[in-house]
Amino acid sequence: MSSSINDSIKHDSREGFQWTEGDGLKQGLPSSSVIQPETNTQPNNNVYDTIIIGAGYTGLTAARDLTTSGLDVLLLEARDRIGGRTWTSTIDGHQYEIGGQYVHWGQPNLWRELSRYSMQQDIDACFDPARGLNVSTVFTKDGLITMTKAENGAILDSAFQKFINIDGDFGKSIMPLPYNPTLVPDAVHLDKLTLKDRIDQIQQDLEPLERTLLEGMLLSLTGGQLETTGFFGVVGLWALCAYSSDCLGRAVAAFKLRHGQSDFAQRFFQEALDAQKLSYFFNCPVASVKDRGSQVEVTAKNGLHFQAKKVICTVPLNVLSNIVFDPPVQELSDDVLASINSNQSTKLHVITPSDALSSWDGLTYPYNRLVHASGEGTTSSGAAHIVCFGASYNHIDPEDNIEETLAAVKMFHQDIDVKSMVFHDWSQDEYSKGGWCSYAATASTKYLGKLRASRGNVTLASSDWALGWRGFIDGAIEEGTRAAYAVKTELAMEAKA
Amino acid sequence: MSSSINDSIKHDSREGFQWTEGDGLKQGLPSSSVIQPETNTQPNNNVYDTIIIGAGYTGLTAARDLTTSGLDVLLLEARDRIGGRTWTSTIDGHQYEIGGQYVHWGQPNLWRELSRYSMQQDIDACFDPARGLNVSTVFTKDGLITMTKAENGAILDSAFQKFINIDGDFGKSIMPLPYNPTLVPDAVHLDKLTLKDRIDQIQQDLEPLERTLLEGMLLSLTGGQLETTGFFGVVGLWALCAYSSDCLGRAVAAFKLRHGQSDFAQRFFQEALDAQKLSYFFNCPVASVKDRGSQVEVTAKNGLHFQAKKVICTVPLNVLSNIVFDPPVQELSDDVLASINSNQSTKLHVITPSDALSSWDGLTYPYNRLVHASGEGTTSSGAAHIVCFGASYNHIDPEDNIEETLAAVKMFHQDIDVKSMVFHDWSQDEYSKGGWCSYAATASTKYLGKLRASRGNVTLASSDWALGWRGFIDGAIEEGTRAAYAVKTELAMEAKA
Repeated sequence: MSSSINDSIKHDSREGFQWTEGDGLKQGLPSSSVIQPETNTQPNNNVYDTIIIGAGYTGLTAARDLTTSGLDVLLLEARDRIGGRTWTSTIDGHQYEIGGQYVHWGQPNLWRELSRYSMQQDIDACFDPARGLNVSTVFTKDGLITMTKAENGAILDSAFQKFINIDGDFGKSIMPLPYNPTLVPDAVHLDKLTLKDRIDQIQQDLEPLERTLLEGMLLSLTGGQLETTGFFGVVGLWALCAYSSDCLGRAVAAFKLRHGQSDFAQRFFQEALDAQKLSYFFNCPVASVKDRGSQVEVTAKNGLHFQAKKVICTVPLNVLSNIVFDPPVQELSDDVLASINSNQSTKLHVITPSDALSSWDGLTYPYNRLVHASGEGTTSSGAAHIVCFGASYNHIDPEDNIEETLAAVKMFHQDIDVKSMVFHDWSQDEYSKGGWCSYAATASTKYLGKLRASRGNVTLASSDWALGWRGFIDGAIEEGTRAAYAVKTELAMEAKA
Repeated sequence: MSSSINDSIKHDSREGFQWTEGDGLKQGLPSSSVIQPETNTQPNNNVYDTIIIGAGYTGLTAARDLTTSGLDVLLLEARDRIGGRTWTSTIDGHQYEIGGQYVHWGQPNLWRELSRYSMQQDIDACFDPARGLNVSTVFTKDGLITMTKAENGAILDSAFQKFINIDGDFGKSIMPLPYNPTLVPDAVHLDKLTLKDRIDQIQQDLEPLERTLLEGMLLSLTGGQLETTGFFGVVGLWALCAYSSDCLGRAVAAFKLRHGQSDFAQRFFQEALDAQKLSYFFNCPVASVKDRGSQVEVTAKNGLHFQAKKVICTVPLNVLSNIVFDPPVQELSDDVLASINSNQSTKLHVITPSDALSSWDGLTYPYNRLVHASGEGTTSSGAAHIVCFGASYNHIDPEDNIEETLAAVKMFHQDIDVKSMVFHDWSQDEYSKGGWCSYAATASTKYLGKLRASRGNVTLASSDWALGWRGFIDGAIEEGTRAAYAVKTELAMEAKA
């Protein structure tokens, strides 16, 4: 079992918001993910082996793998911190996972890294079921219902199985190999279906409460909306989760890292630094990437120019169009790029005095601006920590609508007394413009191959087009690993030639 | 999708047996895993950064990770080939997985490597259910029963759930985190239970056929025997497999590598070679490992001496006592080491003319010397390929008992007409002395921590004491990864000091 590597070093990121009863809204959150000073080098004329754009898990994994293989890497990050869409803020000794959070041993790339850093036992259940209410409440068209979590789970499982069972085999026939989603030719046309299309097909078989729970779960799972988000991606996730809603629940929302995601991300960064082959600039967004054949020129928005043999660009799908690529990323116009990820979700941490809600969960749908909330344990002073999710559907930007946000939180449970909220607005963040990736219908068939294609000296790598756990931390590490291996292999071949 | 990297290079290993109707028994099998010439260096006085003993997946992973990090590695292997307890023989264009075979995306270390080598889509179901009988037969005390696979699966699932459900929560309460098996203090005493102890507890609840299927499945799953093999290890595997027998079946016996395990193993070896930091001797069993504090001396049975700063010893549990360690591996006497792994299993490939059995499976228990058989598709000429498993229970060494082996195979199904058999006897192999690791009752509580402990400059690493998929290929890669990272970190710290 390992301990946190950097508890003592913490700076304020300019990102994120905290709202408290006393002080109202303040921008910026403390985090060990902030890197100061922002660079360890000077503007220079080096030709790096590789420039990596973006210091999320994809970029960190690639940077670590390449530097430890002896290659010179320049890492350029627009933010003031590592982690991309995954970072931890620790406030008054309590951890808030601002973005990606959940971990599971069924996520192979993530788990391999946790294992390599001897962190396999540094994970905890998100809450203690022996403390607090440990029940589910659903506030819907028909009013408020309270039930046990087992009852809630059984209804949701029944509904989810009907939803998935388009092949009469609970997804096993259409998706026998989740890493080969187009293996079954007859299944490919299913990528046309939106979540709503599929719900319409089975609406006669769904009890009203089943439908409410199913729709709410799908919205919080995908961060999308029923009319655009694709059915096929949910089948893929279901297949990765052993065709089981019990497994899916454990895999995507049950366990977290004891020392936080930023501690984990620091290990990649530190290992890359220890290899003494890593240069970096934070606060350094990239303007353009020009592949000249013999090398690639990268120009930052601050005017600095850099050169490398290879570039790995890890910026998310929704902001790929922030960068001018030359030659252009063919067939992926700005309009296309903007159409793929249907996720505009909201994640909001709430602290409320009583610990009763520390193990409770709630759904408010379809009338609320937030869809799902769950107790995630207590602070050291015994207050309940609740995590709320909203979706593209009925989307809210909390910092612009504090009163409405407070009302939305309150709608989950009358006993919630919001003392503080911690969040980041991923939709209004110019370096993400949305949440984790949930493909719109038809998008994976049309664009996944193009996003994954080789492009001369430039490799695009992101969880947003991972083959397996797309949109998850696991997918980011999958892609960073793939990109680093591809670049290493290409450089070795070119050195031989 | 990648293609096989070394189809054309194939030599005969001295290991393994083939029996054919025409030619009888012949020792030795062709395999791309054989390395010729057997060394790429000379006896020398180098002080290597690390000597790795054993070129199975553990040793190959460690060798690759260390050499690509720029460290000088000497790899010593007793056999004439890479892969350890996992290797592929290709005979007349048809692949036989002689040892470890099955792969699944829920095995994180394995899958990360398949992913890194872009092999995620190079896996196939073991057989085509649309071809052949696709039924199950059970030959037991009460005679022969034929049923659909769904019927068989339902009975087995019912029995397995009763078997696991010692906590009233189907294992989820006693093993919420399979990588932290002793997390629940009340559960630890369960490590005392043998498979038989647990079956005795539930015997009133088991229908006779349930019990037969359960016992047969447990024997083929563990390769052990009911009276010695531990219950707790099966709970751990169940937890890794999403607490689901459907998932377990898919994870441990459904999918294989299209180009064979030896092709996969070659990728690790080749990447290590490409780093130009790898020296090796095959056919070079090790006699002793002496840790002198400042360095370690390794003496081979052929009298050669080697020196290194660190040693990673990856030989299996059952043959650790082949090597004299100085200082000795404390508290792990030869008797203790011999008591841990209860697996003395037999794996046997059979070719029979008709393709009818290519999708069939069969159980013969308790009277047969082999327990389980399953069709694994067809050869290019349309013959069925059947894989049979025996266990410690009623163990058979096929090469010493060909007639009895043929009779045992025939007992599975009257239509089997054995044209050829391909196998290796892992029990009589002096470098394995048994099958994949299945802990005897009490062994994991008593010895797992000791096997995983740090020992000066010597790291013991093997799937046999992996934290997760113990006994699987995944566990081997887990351990090779762990050992390489530990050694790399230690060497870096010592270089600083």
